[in-house]
Amino acid sequence: MNLTLVLKVTAILLLVISGFMLAPILVAVYYAELDMLPAFVLPIVGVGIVCGGLLLFVRGRNGELSTRSGFFLVTLSWLSAAAVGAIPFVISQTIPSYIDAFFETMSGFTTTGATILTDIEALPKSILFWRSLTHWLGGMGIIVLTVAILPLLGVSGLQLMRAEAPGPSVDRLTPKITETAKILWLIYLGLTVLETALLMFGGLSLYEALTHTFGTLATGGFSPKAASVGHYTSAYVHIVITVFMMGAGINFILYYRLLKGQFSIIRRNTEVKAYLGIFAVASLIIAAALYGRTYAGFGESLRFAGFQAASILTTTGYATADFATWPQLAQVVLFILMFIGGSAGSTGGGMKVIRIVTAVKQGFNEMRYLIHPRGVFAIRLNGVPVRKDVVYNITGLVFLYLFLLLFTTLFVAIGGHNILTSVSTALVTLGNIGPGFGRIGPVENYGFYQPYIKVYLSLIMMVGRLEVYTVLVLLTPAFWKR
Amino acid sequence: MNLTLVLKVTAILLLVISGFMLAPILVAVYYAELDMLPAFVLPIVGVGIVCGGLLLFVRGRNGELSTRSGFFLVTLSWLSAAAVGAIPFVISQTIPSYIDAFFETMSGFTTTGATILTDIEALPKSILFWRSLTHWLGGMGIIVLTVAILPLLGVSGLQLMRAEAPGPSVDRLTPKITETAKILWLIYLGLTVLETALLMFGGLSLYEALTHTFGTLATGGFSPKAASVGHYTSAYVHIVITVFMMGAGINFILYYRLLKGQFSIIRRNTEVKAYLGIFAVASLIIAAALYGRTYAGFGESLRFAGFQAASILTTTGYATADFATWPQLAQVVLFILMFIGGSAGSTGGGMKVIRIVTAVKQGFNEMRYLIHPRGVFAIRLNGVPVRKDVVYNITGLVFLYLFLLLFTTLFVAIGGHNILTSVSTALVTLGNIGPGFGRIGPVENYGFYQPYIKVYLSLIMMVGRLEVYTVLVLLTPAFWKR
Repeated sequence: MNLTLVLKVTAILLLVISGFMLAPILVAVYYAELDMLPAFVLPIVGVGIVCGGLLLFVRGRNGELSTRSGFFLVTLSWLSAAAVGAIPFVISQTIPSYIDAFFETMSGFTTTGATILTDIEALPKSILFWRSLTHWLGGMGIIVLTVAILPLLGVSGLQLMRAEAPGPSVDRLTPKITETAKILWLIYLGLTVLETALLMFGGLSLYEALTHTFGTLATGGFSPKAASVGHYTSAYVHIVITVFMMGAGINFILYYRLLKGQFSIIRRNTEVKAYLGIFAVASLIIAAALYGRTYAGFGESLRFAGFQAASILTTTGYATADFATWPQLAQVVLFILMFIGGSAGSTGGGMKVIRIVTAVKQGFNEMRYLIHPRGVFAIRLNGVPVRKDVVYNITGLVFLYLFLLLFTTLFVAIGGHNILTSVSTALVTLGNIGPGFGRIGPVENYGFYQPYIKVYLSLIMMVGRLEVYTVLVLLTPAFWKR
Repeated sequence: MNLTLVLKVTAILLLVISGFMLAPILVAVYYAELDMLPAFVLPIVGVGIVCGGLLLFVRGRNGELSTRSGFFLVTLSWLSAAAVGAIPFVISQTIPSYIDAFFETMSGFTTTGATILTDIEALPKSILFWRSLTHWLGGMGIIVLTVAILPLLGVSGLQLMRAEAPGPSVDRLTPKITETAKILWLIYLGLTVLETALLMFGGLSLYEALTHTFGTLATGGFSPKAASVGHYTSAYVHIVITVFMMGAGINFILYYRLLKGQFSIIRRNTEVKAYLGIFAVASLIIAAALYGRTYAGFGESLRFAGFQAASILTTTGYATADFATWPQLAQVVLFILMFIGGSAGSTGGGMKVIRIVTAVKQGFNEMRYLIHPRGVFAIRLNGVPVRKDVVYNITGLVFLYLFLLLFTTLFVAIGGHNILTSVSTALVTLGNIGPGFGRIGPVENYGFYQPYIKVYLSLIMMVGRLEVYTVLVLLTPAFWKR
């Protein structure tokens, strides 16, 4: 393990993150929230001194970043980002408990959107801006992670993406990959500008447009409004956010391909087709359940249905209505969507559409052997057969994910919470969704959980965000053996 | 497809089943329920004429039973058994609706134990005896199915058992297999006599002892008492039934081995160890949750906890208490047990312990490749590495099972039922458990479901009971292609 290099990269990351705290400072100045300034200035100075000093100390020493170091670095960077990102909440006393602040920040960086806050709109705008900004930074981190780092570490399902990506080397971070990452960031930035502009066109202030855009593109879900996107009654705003949520849940490499004019690759993409298909079917079922009961018109029903289906499928977690009061069928469809998630290589969380598709295909594929025991059958994705070891790897991840879901359900239940609350807490934290059912419904929050459950859930959000394996591998004895 | 042979075997089966209707006739005579006699005599005569005639017609024609015919036969036999077994309920007007009677009988033959009856104790004893007897016959059917038929058809997870079984031929039903099946039936019969005697020793009448034994050994769960086993306050009765439920959830081949003195095979058996381990851990957690709250003493808490854990894990579904009123943690543990099930080769249903163990091991195994990408790692069961294609097959089945769980949840929700009710209905019907949570809790019943949901659930119980693949393969176009 190259600890020096790991610390060096972490220090750089923390400097970048604290650098981004300049943004909420601007907001604080603009909205005359001058008492909020220390909350951001102090961590900037503190991180600057500690991490800057560390960098001076280890200057020049580089060496190889081994696979092991890579895993360690990824987990350490998310942990330390949340640890540092929580500081402004505590200093400003907007979230006095550090555990609560850590939960909120981890929820931000993992683009989960689960909140412990009870009265969001009472908070200063600069603090809420920082809260939403953690989403945006986390989403950016996920893009570089899934495109540039995880494939090198061999983490499940992303080998599939690798086949799609423009030929990154399996061995080391090549200039070509950093090049790709840069282009993807530009796409992310471009989408940010576009959505912000469209939302401002719909009547939102720059501050409101930006915070909601951060939550959308990162598939995060934090809103500075207590009623989430439901605060806005404009159908235009709902539709813009629906479209951008769906866009954020698509593999970003496909945008790159789109820009290069390679439309055939998108047409052949199994995951995109399944993703859009699931969205369409779910929206229609929910709309049918809402129509004539919750909303009078079918168009209106479809708008609310589509928004919520997109929000849950992409693991964003925004709400335009309290779906916990919707007809049972609509709720069950949303519940089932919680098992799926966005696309691999997107900012969406969950198990990911591609893994679900592979798992279901694997289930049906095995039936062919019953009829033709001596046959050879392969699963096809994007029109080509998938190597058995890749399928094997994906199934392993799906099982670990399900195992963690049950374990988390049990862990939450130890605190005395009921089945629906425990199960949906597991689903929406591991899947980075945010709101669920029971006591963590769309108009509720996580504030009531015991501190030890908040700590556990903070870690589970990270485990889900980092594709499970990345974190769990650190817990195996084999990892630490020479 | 050799349809003649399929019809012939089905006809013999129906003759055997109608022959068993002589037993409730004895009960009816003994308890002077003479108005119940037509309910059993008519189907005996009817089946005798129809099936006897069919057999005379196809006499002499035999030929090969191909794999396809095998699958068709298995599904057809469960369907027709339930169709015929439902007749006494309708003729006696104890269950006037044929759909309800079919549901109840399918629940019996699949050893599920889900009931549509609202006032059980108001029913004649002969009818309740027949209801319990369907469990016992279904359990017997499952033993011959898992030991003699499914391994020949190559259905998932049972290859593992095949390695344990005393060398059955992979190609055809050999005398050796029928020999094994006979021995296993003798064990089943021996356990039946033993449990009946022990329960009578505890003060139950022969009728009560037999019906509860049928429900126990088949891991069924039908009780002629409204309060299920909770009707009896005797700790002795609870413990006897707990022990026999656990016994019924163990691979019956291990009893065969035990009789032959091959203890080392049992000691090395991964599934038995995991099964007992899960039972012990679940019982202790539930007991801890109950202790001091629901029950004053720890011994009493452990007894109720152990009974319910055994009942759910083995997919029996008996209850000594209304666990829906237990502390949340206890409920969540039971909920998680619903995902597991008994052992392969037992009368227990569910996904089966061995498949869960394989899936979890597969999840953790893949992590080793992250650390040593060029390594070769195998999953070990019973101390030996498992072939990849077997693991592949098992993972396929687990995925189909999970897919069916979600699909069934959605289907039930279409009827307007809430998340907890829909999810637990899917779990306890596909898993052949019986009672669940929400509106189908231990003191509730399935009577309120819409007829179309009852029909669907009847089929899903069958799909679960017949190891999913066996039935689903009939729905693939490839199955019907020449």
